[in-house]
Amino acid sequence: MDHLREKTLSSKEIFSGRIIDLHLEEVELPNGKTSTREIIKHPGAVAVIALTDTNKIVMVKQYRKALERALVEIPAGKLEKGESPKITAKRELEEETGYTCESLEPLISFYTSPGFADELVHLFVAGKLVKMTEAASLDEDEFLDVLEVSLEEAQAMVEDKQIYDAKTAFAVQYLQLKEALST
Amino acid sequence: MDHLREKTLSSKEIFSGRIIDLHLEEVELPNGKTSTREIIKHPGAVAVIALTDTNKIVMVKQYRKALERALVEIPAGKLEKGESPKITAKRELEEETGYTCESLEPLISFYTSPGFADELVHLFVAGKLVKMTEAASLDEDEFLDVLEVSLEEAQAMVEDKQIYDAKTAFAVQYLQLKEALST
Repeated sequence: MDHLREKTLSSKEIFSGRIIDLHLEEVELPNGKTSTREIIKHPGAVAVIALTDTNKIVMVKQYRKALERALVEIPAGKLEKGESPKITAKRELEEETGYTCESLEPLISFYTSPGFADELVHLFVAGKLVKMTEAASLDEDEFLDVLEVSLEEAQAMVEDKQIYDAKTAFAVQYLQLKEALST
Repeated sequence: MDHLREKTLSSKEIFSGRIIDLHLEEVELPNGKTSTREIIKHPGAVAVIALTDTNKIVMVKQYRKALERALVEIPAGKLEKGESPKITAKRELEEETGYTCESLEPLISFYTSPGFADELVHLFVAGKLVKMTEAASLDEDEFLDVLEVSLEEAQAMVEDKQIYDAKTAFAVQYLQLKEALST
């Protein structure tokens, strides 16, 4: 790997925000030349594949300002500082959907945009959902609709781009794979 | 959807770089309160699932400065302004791997990080790879190793986090699903 490594010559923080920071790094390339890298620092996130007892996938629809449109996604949220991904995942499931779960198992983690960001998403599978009598409250700048859709409906939503993000596309494909392997 | 919409009150460009721009937007939330959104503008990208005639997946290993480590990924690259994703995909396959292809079909597109970025990745499946006699040249700040791995090897690389990004994890799962459906 060392023949591919880029050494940091200098690093400058351009912006430090509520959620992301932007750094500009001057790097030495493997051939000794220099280049710049624009890097977004992100706290990381979790997402949850949650199926009801009638085998519906719990989804949330919310407005994504970066895209100027709403997307249907699996429940997800940013990691709080020092919080373990599993704790965050349970909290986000409860806050966003009004369901809690009896078990929660890690499925996979992946970087969303390794070319410019360090955001790592941890994907969990929730087991045995239980409707909460009192819904946990959302963040004060968070507004969403909860949907429960079958796998077939989710596949149709991928087709017509209501579902249009990497983690949810991965989750739907995971459920397709699980179904294919079980038959 | 309108009951979820966030209206832009003001937008300020914080940074305009080689690859990404950062905007800070003040928004009006559905309940009339205000909040800020940190938004990364990205030109979008393509990625290619390419299988050799012995059914190996063509991958590239490269250093990702945002992560300070190398990742094994499917061939990918940023969209050039005004270029169609399919043209970009063919060019990136040729430049990064030394293979060209006789066909190239769109599989799926997805936003990588809808919470803060508008990066859209277009995933293609290449048909019938042909080794080029003269390799196309890489960008001058791009260094990588080309690997050809079986699906089983790719699954092991997901397990041990050599493969660790959303598009490549999706691609490996796609090939698993294809295999499961064909047996």
